[in-house]
Amino acid sequence: MIYLDHAAATPVSRKAEIAMRDYFSEQFFNPSAPYLPAKHVRENYEYAKDRIAHTIGAKGADLIITAGATESINLAFTAIPENAGEIMILATEHASVRATAKHFAEVLKAKLIEINVDKTGLIDLKDFRKKLNEKTAFVSISLANNELGTIQPLAEIAEIIRTERDQRLKNKDKSPIYFHSDASQALNLIDISVSRLGVDLLTINSAKIGGPKGVGALYVSHDVRLKPVIYGGGQEAGLRSGTENVPGVIGFATAAEEAKEHINGNRKKYQEMVKILKSELSKCKLTPLFLGSTKHQLANFCPVSFPGVDAERIIYMLEETQVYLSTGAACSANKGTVSHVLKAINLSPEEIAGSLRISLGILNTKENVKEAGKLIREAVEKEYERTH
Amino acid sequence: MIYLDHAAATPVSRKAEIAMRDYFSEQFFNPSAPYLPAKHVRENYEYAKDRIAHTIGAKGADLIITAGATESINLAFTAIPENAGEIMILATEHASVRATAKHFAEVLKAKLIEINVDKTGLIDLKDFRKKLNEKTAFVSISLANNELGTIQPLAEIAEIIRTERDQRLKNKDKSPIYFHSDASQALNLIDISVSRLGVDLLTINSAKIGGPKGVGALYVSHDVRLKPVIYGGGQEAGLRSGTENVPGVIGFATAAEEAKEHINGNRKKYQEMVKILKSELSKCKLTPLFLGSTKHQLANFCPVSFPGVDAERIIYMLEETQVYLSTGAACSANKGTVSHVLKAINLSPEEIAGSLRISLGILNTKENVKEAGKLIREAVEKEYERTH
Repeated sequence: MIYLDHAAATPVSRKAEIAMRDYFSEQFFNPSAPYLPAKHVRENYEYAKDRIAHTIGAKGADLIITAGATESINLAFTAIPENAGEIMILATEHASVRATAKHFAEVLKAKLIEINVDKTGLIDLKDFRKKLNEKTAFVSISLANNELGTIQPLAEIAEIIRTERDQRLKNKDKSPIYFHSDASQALNLIDISVSRLGVDLLTINSAKIGGPKGVGALYVSHDVRLKPVIYGGGQEAGLRSGTENVPGVIGFATAAEEAKEHINGNRKKYQEMVKILKSELSKCKLTPLFLGSTKHQLANFCPVSFPGVDAERIIYMLEETQVYLSTGAACSANKGTVSHVLKAINLSPEEIAGSLRISLGILNTKENVKEAGKLIREAVEKEYERTH
Repeated sequence: MIYLDHAAATPVSRKAEIAMRDYFSEQFFNPSAPYLPAKHVRENYEYAKDRIAHTIGAKGADLIITAGATESINLAFTAIPENAGEIMILATEHASVRATAKHFAEVLKAKLIEINVDKTGLIDLKDFRKKLNEKTAFVSISLANNELGTIQPLAEIAEIIRTERDQRLKNKDKSPIYFHSDASQALNLIDISVSRLGVDLLTINSAKIGGPKGVGALYVSHDVRLKPVIYGGGQEAGLRSGTENVPGVIGFATAAEEAKEHINGNRKKYQEMVKILKSELSKCKLTPLFLGSTKHQLANFCPVSFPGVDAERIIYMLEETQVYLSTGAACSANKGTVSHVLKAINLSPEEIAGSLRISLGILNTKENVKEAGKLIREAVEKEYERTH
């Protein structure tokens, strides 16, 4: 098997799996129970939160643990005040941000505004500056795009938002503006520091970085007030009720530390692999169109289009040689809808139809990436010949 | 260690743990991805939902998978229509139901009404009939109480609600009334069938029956329309977005089937153990007050009060001999608040202060229960002598 879809899911790392085991049948206690072993579980849980938080330059108390990135995003949007005028997202945001933004805009009767991107998927800062105004209450821009791997200049964006804040302060306008980023794809490849990025809210995810599925977290800066999405027993500082998923958080912490530790090595490793892959794909009789930004792209991403072939056919052909990759985001991949991300970067219908999302990771080696490149190239050529 | 707090948490069963393992690092694929191994994961996921559903006499398509009972309860309450007049819950509902009901009542400007219970924690059907009226939009009554183990007559309650429905039909009143039950505590001890119980919505939970933490489900009958609590990629029929927690659901399914299989044997086993425990506790110089209904009580529950001693002190004393039990619901146990359940059954402050929640389970044997009974008795006597 050659797996090229690490942006959709990653295997749980050996270390994370072993770390979790202890908490299934041994340290299984409810962390809210009053006896000693339960208190130990509580301590280990809080310590795991600290460990996760440290990987983004925060403290455990700044994190709300959730059941995944989607829930974190939903929770982040509760920061939007009742009288909000406008909510802004990037045109290429993940379905979880898009659907949440749409829902909150409807409920709050706020206007939902999309910020344009350029051909590489990078934010159009001019467009952002133009659209940002005194009515903007919330801005949500992912750190790295899940289809293109394009990395957004969050610190620059935060600076622009800070200027808007200063303006409001001068005008004695007390309406807040919050900046949220979905960093689900980035924790294992970008050295994240919330203060450096200048975000008020940051979504991170376990399942994309070698941790278990069903766990995520939201970083919340001190001056942001959220409302619960889930009401109940009052866990997570009253913001996320429900018995704590202790093994999940232990696994997340272990994976997050592992990811952080290997960021530099991984980045270099994946850059080399992508180079090999691109060189292999470039030998194709059909000229590949490499997508996204070459300068601002996650090191493990290699989105590519072969205009003239149907990418879905290619995926089925490659399936037979046990090469697994995706046409777009996994969560919309099998719904037959055209990727809004590829539309936003102005690809032609033919370019969109021929688009493959390749995301490397822990299961790749130079050898299997080279082999995959060859097999993809052959499938594309065969399919092109068959249909032309 | 003698663990007497199975109502707060249970260890993951060996079978469930082994079943999950395969899905951490082998079958880790995103079930929405388009290639064959991901489709297999999707199939196994849907099959696991079917397996869970079968244990309550439903189909997989009737279930929405969530991150636990609390989220299921929150999702159930979204059935309440916008123009709802009144929401009814039992006075002894768990914090997750109470807080959710309060929140929805506030948002929908509906009245929140509590139904009384008798001294054993059993619903006062007369009070229920009196309070039920044409404005009632939603009724939430747990199948078994989490502090007393009292089992409510859901089928009878459903019948009363059906009569109210018929009345509305006659009056050409189209406003719906939905019946939800939180069955978190009961799946391993009561043979649940949603049609027999007559509920429209049923919350079940993995962590209380030997499955992993962080997974739950909501059964939804065909004529109920819910709104999402979490927006995003549209998983779980658009009602619960987020990448599916595949290992969690596999573990839940395995545990649910195991629980169902052993219901009769377990019930008998725990009845015997409770008998042993009660006989041991009855030898105490302080007369124990056994709480809850003797007729309608989960077989593994033995809530008891020793008026005149401080139950929290008893718990700390027993901790030293590695006997672990709780004063009330684990989720509120360490917050220093008085149990609303014990208040609802009209216990005196002294009776409440001396209350222990004992819930047996997989980690108990006749021998360790007998030993625990002796140690509890001795602790109570010692503490009483010290303070009197």
